[in-house]
Order: sequence, then C-alpha cells, then structure tokens
Amino acid sequence: MSEPISRIITLTTDFGLQDPFVGAMKGVMLRINPHLQLVDITHQIGPYQVMEAALVLNAFYPYYPAGTIHLVVVDPGVGGPRRPILAWTQGHYFIAPDNGVLSMIYRDKELQGVREIAARQYFLEEVSATFHGRDIFAPVAAWLSSGLEPSVLGGEIQDYVRLTIPEPHWAGEKELCGEVLYVDRFGNLMSNIPESLIRHRPFSPEGREKVRIRLGLLEIRGIHRFYGEGRPGEPGAILNSWGYLEIYVNQGNARHSLGMGKGQALWVLFE
Amino acid sequence: MSEPISRIITLTTDFGLQDPFVGAMKGVMLRINPHLQLVDITHQIGPYQVMEAALVLNAFYPYYPAGTIHLVVVDPGVGGPRRPILAWTQGHYFIAPDNGVLSMIYRDKELQGVREIAARQYFLEEVSATFHGRDIFAPVAAWLSSGLEPSVLGGEIQDYVRLTIPEPHWAGEKELCGEVLYVDRFGNLMSNIPESLIRHRPFSPEGREKVRIRLGLLEIRGIHRFYGEGRPGEPGAILNSWGYLEIYVNQGNARHSLGMGKGQALWVLFE
Amino acid sequence: MSEPISRIITLTTDFGLQDPFVGAMKGVMLRINPHLQLVDITHQIGPYQVMEAALVLNAFYPYYPAGTIHLVVVDPGVGGPRRPILAWTQGHYFIAPDNGVLSMIYRDKELQGVREIAARQYFLEEVSATFHGRDIFAPVAAWLSSGLEPSVLGGEIQDYVRLTIPEPHWAGEKELCGEVLYVDRFGNLMSNIPESLIRHRPFSPEGREKVRIRLGLLEIRGIHRFYGEGRPGEPGAILNSWGYLEIYVNQGNARHSLGMGKGQALWVLFE
Repeated sequence: MSEPISRIITLTTDFGLQDPFVGAMKGVMLRINPHLQLVDITHQIGPYQVMEAALVLNAFYPYYPAGTIHLVVVDPGVGGPRRPILAWTQGHYFIAPDNGVLSMIYRDKELQGVREIAARQYFLEEVSATFHGRDIFAPVAAWLSSGLEPSVLGGEIQDYVRLTIPEPHWAGEKELCGEVLYVDRFGNLMSNIPESLIRHRPFSPEGREKVRIRLGLLEIRGIHRFYGEGRPGEPGAILNSWGYLEIYVNQGNARHSLGMGKGQALWVLFE
Repeated sequence: MSEPISRIITLTTDFGLQDPFVGAMKGVMLRINPHLQLVDITHQIGPYQVMEAALVLNAFYPYYPAGTIHLVVVDPGVGGPRRPILAWTQGHYFIAPDNGVLSMIYRDKELQGVREIAARQYFLEEVSATFHGRDIFAPVAAWLSSGLEPSVLGGEIQDYVRLTIPEPHWAGEKELCGEVLYVDRFGNLMSNIPESLIRHRPFSPEGREKVRIRLGLLEIRGIHRFYGEGRPGEPGAILNSWGYLEIYVNQGNARHSLGMGKGQALWVLFE
Repeated sequence: MSEPISRIITLTTDFGLQDPFVGAMKGVMLRINPHLQLVDITHQIGPYQVMEAALVLNAFYPYYPAGTIHLVVVDPGVGGPRRPILAWTQGHYFIAPDNGVLSMIYRDKELQGVREIAARQYFLEEVSATFHGRDIFAPVAAWLSSGLEPSVLGGEIQDYVRLTIPEPHWAGEKELCGEVLYVDRFGNLMSNIPESLIRHRPFSPEGREKVRIRLGLLEIRGIHRFYGEGRPGEPGAILNSWGYLEIYVNQGNARHSLGMGKGQALWVLFE
C-alpha cells in the first residue's frame, strides 16, 4: 500500500439530497483535509439497499485515477456489531460498513486486502450510535487522503461479509437463464448476463439477429447495437455500456411499459 | 472579523435540482473567485420553507472549518423590502435573506454580529427583482471569500427577523411535551426534545428502558441506543445524531407507517 | 481559439442522480485532468428532452468565466449516425451531440464556429454504442481543459442540427401571442415572450398596470415587479430573472393550481 494517495474522495450513500447528512460528512472531511476533491456519485441509493450500492460502486470505480478513495455508506446496521472496513485493490481504496456492500470488489482478481477500521483516534471525538458516516467513515477517509498509512487503522481480516449475487446459468445447451439486477433512471432493465456469456456462442452479425430473449410473455428477437436501432416505443435488447444484456424501450421506459423490475427472470435462447 | 476567510462556500437553497438557478449562482461565484471550493448541502429545501432551512443549517454548519461561508437562499420575499444580511459567529459566516432563516444561529452563544448587506458595488451590475441568489447573495459570498472586509458590506443591525422555534416544555413533574420538527429521507421523525432534557432525569441504562413516549395512540417503551435494536418494521425511539429524540421504524419509514409528520405532538413520560 | 482554457467543466445531462452514469464520466475526466473544477448544473433534464436542455443551457452559461467548457449530454440518438460536436463563442466551449441541443447558442451573435469531433485518439480506447457521455464527450472535454488545441478534434461544419424554437408573434397591433416554454421547480410558467417585446410598447409604471395577459380562461391584469407583490395563492405575471414574461402564483405553484404547462398559449393585450 505504498502508492501515492490522491486527494479524490467519491461518495455513494442512501442519504438522499434533502437532509444535512451528506453536508455534515463533507464538512468533517474538509476540516481534516481542505484540499480534497469531493465527488458525489449518488446519494439516491434506495434506503438500506446494500446490493444496489454494490452494483453501482462496481460500475463507476474503475474509471477513477489510481489512489482514489471511495466512501460507501449504506448502513442499515449502524451502531450495531457490524465493523467499519477498508478494502483495497491495485489503485483504489474502499471505506464502508462490513455488510456486503463491497461484494463486487471482493470478486476483483486484484483485491489486495481488507482491514477492520479500529483506530478510534481517527474518528470524531464523540461517536454517535446512528451516524457513522459522519463520525467514523468520513474522518477516516479524509485522514487516508492526507497520507495516513492504512495499516495503522486496524488488522487485516478474512471473514468480511459477502452477499450472494445472483449468477446466470445454462438451463440447457442453448438456453441461458438470468435475472434483472438493476433498473436505471430511463427504466432500462439491466440483467446479470455478461457479454462474454453471450459471445460464448457463435455471435456473428447474423448470430446477433438469431438470438431470442424471453421475459414473461414477451419475446424479443435479436440484439441491437444501439438504442436508436429499435422503433420508438418498442422493446429491444442490447449489450449495455457496462457489458451486460439489457432490455430497453427506445425513447421510452421499459420498467413502466413492460411492468417488470428487479428480480425479473429472463432467458436467452440460441438457435 | 480578522480571522482568515477560507475558500469554502456551502450552498443551501430551495431551488431544486432541475432548473439552472444553482448553476447560474455557481458561475457568478467562480467568475469572481475561480479557486472556490463549492459544497452543495441541499437544494431540496421545501419551496419557501424557511424554518426547514433554519433547522438544516444548524445541523451541518458546526462540522465545517473556520472561515467557511454558508450561503442560504430560501427567499419567498425576494424583491420586496426584506434585507440581505451577513451574520457571523466564531469561525462561520452566513449570508441569507433577513426572513428568519438564520434563527438557530442567533441562539448560538458565540454569535458575534449581524450586518445588513447594502454595498451595491458587490452585487451584479443588473439586479433582477426575482433572483437575488444570483444577483446579490452569490457575488457577495464570492467577494467575501476573496478577502473582502465584511464591514464594508453595510452597518450592524439588531432588528433582524427571528422565527419562533417551538420549544419543549414540562407538562407535569414527570411529563415532557414536545413536537416533531423535521422528517428526514428515511421517514424518521425528529422532535424538538434535546438529549439534555431527557438526561435531566435519572437516565441510567435502566432508566433508558423505563421512559415511555406517546404520539397519538402510539406508546413506545424505552429508548434504543441504535436503530438496529428495534425489530424490523417496529416503531422505536432513539437519541439521534444531532442530539434530539427521534421516532423511527427499523428498516422502515415512520412517516409512512405511522402516518405522522411535522407538527405531531409527543409526550415523554418518566417513572 | 487562442484564449486560455479554464479548468472549469460544467455538466448538464438527463442521466438523473440515482445511477452511476455521471460518476463514471467524472472519473474519466479526473483521470485525464485531476485539477478540474467540475460543476454539476443539472442531471434532471427530462429523459431525451433536447429542447429543455437547450433552454437550461442558455440560462446559466453566460454567468461563467471565459474559457469554461460546458458538457451537455442529452442524447437519444447515441450510437447512431449523429455526430459529437464542439461549438464555441467568445469565451465558452460547448461539447454535445449534434441533435439541436445547442440551438440557443447558434443564435448567439458571437458564435465563432462548430466542429465535428472526430479524433478517436481522444476518446476512451473502447467506445460503447450506448454511453458516449463516458466514452467520447467526457474525455474530449478533459483533454480540452488540459490545453488540447480544438482544431485537432475535427473540421469545421455548417450543417449542424437546429431545433425550431417557438417564437412569439404579433397577432394584431395590440396583441402579442406566445407560449409557455419551460416550467421551473416552483411551478412558474416561463413564456417565450422577452422583456424587449413588451417594452416595445409604451411601458411606463402605469403601462405596466394596463397590460392584460390571457391564458385559457384566465386573465391577469398588470405585470408585477416582484413575486411578493401578488396576494398569496393568486396568479400574477412578472418579467423573470432571465428576461422573459412568466406566470406565477405567489407562494404557490402555477403549474398545479392553474393546470397549465409547457406549450400553453398566452396572449399579451396592450391598451
């Protein structure tokens, strides 16, 4: 962990945009390190939706420069026995409660370690039982960005909490089964089926057109290359910008017009 | 007022996140001082909700470093006779319309003074009658952060507007009466009863369990130490991270499931 | 285009605040230029609402310092044949898809030119077909802010897409006809009738009171100078802070209480 730490801290929480929670956290950090570059990712994670935060985190963090500190506070167990932790990969630091919100990071082949955060001298003097974002996570992130050696925060651990992330599976030789993991602002339904699994089958420009996708009673023929390829208002399938199969409605909202959401099963049928 | 001014300006408004209001204010400030650190607190104060802004402001500002400038624009009287003002305490500057939005600051024992902002040379050249956030408050904040001596802005005043903030009272020797002042994103109901009043009574670990709290037909027994102590879906009471008694539903939303909100009366009964 | 480029990049998108889209774009930019000042204008443009973004852009950009780069990503045609473009005026750079979102800028007498962005070496190495905000627009903006000479991005073009922006017209010698173009957070109805057209007629303090405005069955007498001039709950007309005629309800919401919105026709009648 000798690489230089950057002054960038990203923030991902379920605190919303109405209350002073995030504002208090930013104050705590700026008091410790006034030269910070604070980057709001989102504060609109669904309340207590740990899995949603895990997916969001995985989608943006690889685009940040080496040394970036990612602060993730979705913390239904605040004040209870769950530990604050620090995980790090080649180039990225993650500070979060130990509730599985870093599960996607743990699958990273470059994960270098996870530490319990135990060194109370880097917390606020008074630690409340209800807002560790302000009292523990924010000050620790700011101290790290100021050059604090991560090893002083606490010892390495192996028994950190891992969520079970639903995986796609082959239901037959020519039938791949997955589910919708995430629904974005546009109502696009992102599945857990990665491009690599679909490309496992012969996937020429013609193959792209021969694939069929089933969700409930809906059957979609072919995979588009870009959203505008579908007719306005019509459902289509695409390999999205994070590399996953996604169901969309061109210039519309698939969630609303199809009445489908998170957890919806889908099948990919190859000829 | 000789302490050094920081380059941090916080923003708290009811302008929302959809329109170009806040964006225009930031441009005005960056044109005057390009080295600013602009920190959005919230732009989701309810339209014209001066009291809500006063409470939010009080919750985050103490966490900021000395010299921070806090810009608060919730301004139903824009263009009318209400004055723009500057208040300051040891370490913090507040720029706002004189409509009571700084009422919580005025109760601060460290309040050092309030000035009317009258020096038009620090406003935009053309001042509209409808958007003083852009034309008066933003440029004045940026000039202050650039080292402008506050005394040149205008004379000190004493007759600034104060809101009546509902105070808790003893309804009997063993009965404390308060009300819900603020509801947060999670639907938690924050009351105006501070920890100090509850601790006024013997409040040992056992005492904590003997307190009863009544809201309408609901009675809650005991005060939890952290949210997770309650059973999921069950209402509980807690002393929150700002030091006030709060009613919550563990992993749920008290506002929705109890059907209670701002202004709801509550009683604390001691044995 | 030899003026110095600032480190300020503003962001205007329809990506919303829930998903990791904007966070990924910011990471891409900070990796190229870690000294950026990133300013969120709004990410709440209605999905695919190109005209709305064009109006918002026009309202905030003139307040920014010379050299600012404005990134606008409302991009229903992403992945299709529409080009990425760079437009510039005296002091401002605009990076956007060529779908008309810069139409208000093109009307600027100071428009200096528009280039197609074609130089793939300034894009991310892998360009997806669905997220050019991250893969093309963000990196190009960051390279520009790092001092890249704009002319290397691509050749100048003349055939960029222009939206038809509804213009007000004289329906008679004393009757001006316009429509509502934009509705803000407060429910205020902003029309396309500029102050200059109203002032075209004798507009003394008395004239202000003699104008009548008709929307549907509603008739408003006179034009107020500030919002508070109207009685609470009553509809009024005002010349707003962007210089356009606007219908509002004092301390209320005109959209909701009048049941009117974008596209609503209105007439200004002079005596």
